[in-house]
Amino acid sequence: MLGGVRVVAAGAALITDAVPEADLLRLDWRPPGSGDPDAARDLMTVTEPEVDAANARAMALVHAVRPQLLDVRPASDVVPGLVDHGLLHAGPPIAWSRMCGPMQGALIGATLFEGWAPDESAARALLGSGRITLSPCHDHATVGPMAGVVSPSMPVLVVGDGERRAFATLNEGLGKVLRFGAFDAEVLGRLAWLREVLGPVLSQALETGGPVDVTTLVAQALSMGDEGHNRNLASSSLLARRLAPELARLDDGAAALSFLAANDHFALNISMAAAKLSMDAAADVAHSSLVTVMCRNGVEFGIRTAGTGAQWFTAPVGPATGLYFSGFGPEHANPDLGDSSITETLGLGGFAMAAAPAITRFVGGTVADAIATTRSMRRITITEHPVYQLPGLGFVGTPSGIDARKVVETGVLPVINTGIAHLEAGVGQIGAGTVTAPAEVFSAAIAALAARERAEASR
Amino acid sequence: MLGGVRVVAAGAALITDAVPEADLLRLDWRPPGSGDPDAARDLMTVTEPEVDAANARAMALVHAVRPQLLDVRPASDVVPGLVDHGLLHAGPPIAWSRMCGPMQGALIGATLFEGWAPDESAARALLGSGRITLSPCHDHATVGPMAGVVSPSMPVLVVGDGERRAFATLNEGLGKVLRFGAFDAEVLGRLAWLREVLGPVLSQALETGGPVDVTTLVAQALSMGDEGHNRNLASSSLLARRLAPELARLDDGAAALSFLAANDHFALNISMAAAKLSMDAAADVAHSSLVTVMCRNGVEFGIRTAGTGAQWFTAPVGPATGLYFSGFGPEHANPDLGDSSITETLGLGGFAMAAAPAITRFVGGTVADAIATTRSMRRITITEHPVYQLPGLGFVGTPSGIDARKVVETGVLPVINTGIAHLEAGVGQIGAGTVTAPAEVFSAAIAALAARERAEASR
Repeated sequence: MLGGVRVVAAGAALITDAVPEADLLRLDWRPPGSGDPDAARDLMTVTEPEVDAANARAMALVHAVRPQLLDVRPASDVVPGLVDHGLLHAGPPIAWSRMCGPMQGALIGATLFEGWAPDESAARALLGSGRITLSPCHDHATVGPMAGVVSPSMPVLVVGDGERRAFATLNEGLGKVLRFGAFDAEVLGRLAWLREVLGPVLSQALETGGPVDVTTLVAQALSMGDEGHNRNLASSSLLARRLAPELARLDDGAAALSFLAANDHFALNISMAAAKLSMDAAADVAHSSLVTVMCRNGVEFGIRTAGTGAQWFTAPVGPATGLYFSGFGPEHANPDLGDSSITETLGLGGFAMAAAPAITRFVGGTVADAIATTRSMRRITITEHPVYQLPGLGFVGTPSGIDARKVVETGVLPVINTGIAHLEAGVGQIGAGTVTAPAEVFSAAIAALAARERAEASR
Repeated sequence: MLGGVRVVAAGAALITDAVPEADLLRLDWRPPGSGDPDAARDLMTVTEPEVDAANARAMALVHAVRPQLLDVRPASDVVPGLVDHGLLHAGPPIAWSRMCGPMQGALIGATLFEGWAPDESAARALLGSGRITLSPCHDHATVGPMAGVVSPSMPVLVVGDGERRAFATLNEGLGKVLRFGAFDAEVLGRLAWLREVLGPVLSQALETGGPVDVTTLVAQALSMGDEGHNRNLASSSLLARRLAPELARLDDGAAALSFLAANDHFALNISMAAAKLSMDAAADVAHSSLVTVMCRNGVEFGIRTAGTGAQWFTAPVGPATGLYFSGFGPEHANPDLGDSSITETLGLGGFAMAAAPAITRFVGGTVADAIATTRSMRRITITEHPVYQLPGLGFVGTPSGIDARKVVETGVLPVINTGIAHLEAGVGQIGAGTVTAPAEVFSAAIAALAARERAEASR
């Protein structure tokens, strides 16, 4: 039935170079583990039905979570394990001295914001001294975009389901903001306003008008051109409209509504916290190759899987490819950073690209590319999201739950929609695009999982 | 190049009934005017380059309009020619005795609302007596959805560009509402609240926070899954977010925001008024076959064209085909009504169906159908809208400006997204779907235009 095809080729391209294209049908196949015998052996170990069953169990746990936006509270009141003189940051663990410019800038800003140092150089000295405890957001049920810095007095979104909780910072808007490493008076002034005004006002509005069902909010936004990572206009507008009546009854409500009306990404951090809450439900499912965390610290990309629990698998991360704002180019781009890729970990962002044809104007590519990206992500996920659907693809669920095995098997790497930060602290966002997760972290995770499986089998 | 095709068929299907489907390529061709020699002669008359030039001129006028939402005012203050004891209704002109149930119900409601009659039977008697002046909204630079009834004390949206103005009622929300012919105490109470509270509050908010650029609002909504007629969630949410800070500063702002938060169609009436303002710019362009009005009164479908000015061309209208709410079916459906098809007249609604894959869940059909509908509407329009774009189709403009000639030539009828009203006054909406405009109104308009052209040529 293959029309004029005379040669079917799988694997290495070289063999087929001499075959006229019209006569050729290429199959996108490569040897498991890309030909590495150790990787192939690891894959064999984790292809047991037990792993499949564990993955199904893990996804059932993830999809059973119904995150609710409950409150906005000072981080020190609610974030577990956030010590005095402790700061959280995005991505896998990293020492102060190895951090990129924007992350150092954000930590300096947070140190000044907390009043722990009088100026930049004192803050740098304090941060370099080790007397500030630095740890990844992900170790504290928290996520933060870009630098992802959380300090004790900052207000955080409280998202919960039953007794479980996850947290994220409030989105500061675009321009000069802490998460891109800026820490001048304007940035610290806005942070103070978030702490003194917006946080408490949102808390009051949620007390009378909440909670907000985040799953419904995000699902509705996916039918409105959001992909839930780089495009959050629908979710942000729906949320503002939802909370407006409550906010209007409060003294500072009008100011809060002005802020929400000008911030097209306000709801991103809410869906990040919700995705974190969902993925944490499977954080320790034995034998599962489900990726439960993907994040970047501006130097390294880090993942965790359910079957390997809190263990980090990291590899260097590059900058995103995409579209730059006028006057900037790849030479100004910081390697990718932020915890926002928790959205892709659940099945939004790059995985839901087909929901957001308009995003191609922002991250590059065509509508066909966007659909192809979503389709290719389905090759590496365990299932589809039961509630997050893609109207343009006949209401199929978004690809949900990355199976690290499938990434290694297929060589298809998770696509992450992201903002591009300037290398230097404080310049801010200079573009947007996509980045793929490095292959090494997935093969390392599979190797670790395989080692666990073998150890257990030999016990 | 036509594979296994042996027979190419154009026109009547009967000839090809004996040809196996696999051997057949059907061309969607039919003789101009569907074979009617008079219609063919009329078409010949209006294929002159002068008509093309007039159509281009007309569309330039239409697309040059940039409607702004300026104010909300009592109809009696602003609507031209709305006399005391005068009521406006949707669609082409129609006498009280010939009106459908929902329209009669809405007029009874408006009569009670204005205090012109103490009860239903007195209102019926008054309306039947001819002492209430009834006229189409379209004759007063106004549009109204469904029954489209406007009474003097009702607040209307004021949309303008330069000195020109167009008007529409405020959307009452779903359920028991005047526009579906309901007129009980709940309905009249809500109308009173719109008049006493919402109208004045919106007017104040627009005074400090307006005007709102409607073109930008609708264009953004098209990239967020609205098609601008049956789906208005994005535009309504964007508008609520936009006006929320201003509303929050006013005494009744919280109540107004509660109403906006619960009304997913609030912005429909704004885009209707904006479309009316745009189309009115070409209301009298001589020689043009542009359709400037499409509307329904629940009995007849009426159109106007630029080259024939205020002359109505009408034909009976049927009910929409689509999906019914539980417990209802076609036997309960009123023939289609309302001025909301002004959105299709400009290039929204059915013409922009491809923007709103999620609408297929509401009006029926598949995503592929939605795209096919938009593509087929392009066959009968003069051009594409320069600002209203379809992200899912690579940002092509929506089909804009129906050429009555092309409708007659191709037999492709304008597709209108619509709500389905119950036959009986006051039951309300029982479904949603699509309706096609009747072919006769376009051939009648072309005949009238051709007669004018011939008269002018012989002068």
